[in-house]
Amino acid sequence: MRETFHAELDALVDDLASTTRLTGQMMTNASVALHRANLAVAESVISSKQQLTTRCGDMQQRCVTLLALQAPVATDLRIVVAALHVLGDLQRMGNLAEHIAKIARMKHPAVPIPGEIRPVFARMGVLATSLARDAATAIENRDPLSVDRLTQDDDEVDALRRRTFQMLLSKDWPHGVQSAVDTALIGRYYERFADHAVAIARQVSFVVTGLALQR
Amino acid sequence: MRETFHAELDALVDDLASTTRLTGQMMTNASVALHRANLAVAESVISSKQQLTTRCGDMQQRCVTLLALQAPVATDLRIVVAALHVLGDLQRMGNLAEHIAKIARMKHPAVPIPGEIRPVFARMGVLATSLARDAATAIENRDPLSVDRLTQDDDEVDALRRRTFQMLLSKDWPHGVQSAVDTALIGRYYERFADHAVAIARQVSFVVTGLALQR
Repeated sequence: MRETFHAELDALVDDLASTTRLTGQMMTNASVALHRANLAVAESVISSKQQLTTRCGDMQQRCVTLLALQAPVATDLRIVVAALHVLGDLQRMGNLAEHIAKIARMKHPAVPIPGEIRPVFARMGVLATSLARDAATAIENRDPLSVDRLTQDDDEVDALRRRTFQMLLSKDWPHGVQSAVDTALIGRYYERFADHAVAIARQVSFVVTGLALQR
Repeated sequence: MRETFHAELDALVDDLASTTRLTGQMMTNASVALHRANLAVAESVISSKQQLTTRCGDMQQRCVTLLALQAPVATDLRIVVAALHVLGDLQRMGNLAEHIAKIARMKHPAVPIPGEIRPVFARMGVLATSLARDAATAIENRDPLSVDRLTQDDDEVDALRRRTFQMLLSKDWPHGVQSAVDTALIGRYYERFADHAVAIARQVSFVVTGLALQR
């Protein structure tokens, strides 16, 4: 019974890690859809979102079943509690990638971001995807210290977002209000995606150490 | 032992409800800070955020302890699982109120929202607070159908946000890029706050019915 339990727990952790990678892939695709005005890629992100919701619903049910049938304690219990939180983060990450894909779809065939913002958003997209990948690796390795490395990348995302604000609030922003609004919101979506990746790394730290890190 | 357990579970549910009301109060205050350019009220929201984080951390610990020591099943288990999700929503609701308060503080003594947007945001603020209150009542009454009523108010919040977009993306928006960006982001914060209140009502429905509602 206990062996089955641990096999199920390991499978849950593996699935959480692979789903975290999936959100990273969704964000890569959302960035490509945005920069290349690629409608097919935007649509693929939007359908991935449906799969993600189903997967997360399934994992949520497995968490409840594990708690009900196995009454885990100590680290095992913390894994399930952390998994429930991570599922919330993963759903939000999927939503945020979908928001960017939907902007790409709505503005197609135009690219809604002005030329000087593009390299900044390209970098934010790379960092967001890399954060999701690092969060997945943190889950796989049960690495309690990964949060420090992720926080560094998250700080860079925040700095890039501030840079976009400086650009769009400068006196000589020539691209009008619509571009400014798109830029502000897309920047927010990248920033929140990165925050959720850090939150996942915090949950890994909670699992390993038993200590909750303040957000 | 079981009696103590149920007393602790009831206390947890009461605290979740009162904390949900607190986030509603924070959003009321954030709206006042924004519309009245009131620095003291803005600061009070920012300090409430710290208290909220502490309260949520404490409740999270109580959830883990209840799971570890009592191994609840069926409805009792769903209450604790739902509580863990609700804690995530409450922290986000507090953050969103704080974001609005921080914009009010940053722009003080100016009011950062143009005249024609103010009544729209005032209504969104009222709805957001009312959604938090309704979510708290749903928790107290364990009302599985409250989600329908909350969804109606949430739909109105979404419609109001679309109206702000129409206003700020119209050809004759005279208030410049900075106001447009503030308006887009503040609208987003109200909208997300409302979404989290609906998510709480969904968790109540999950507790009572055992069925997870799709987001």
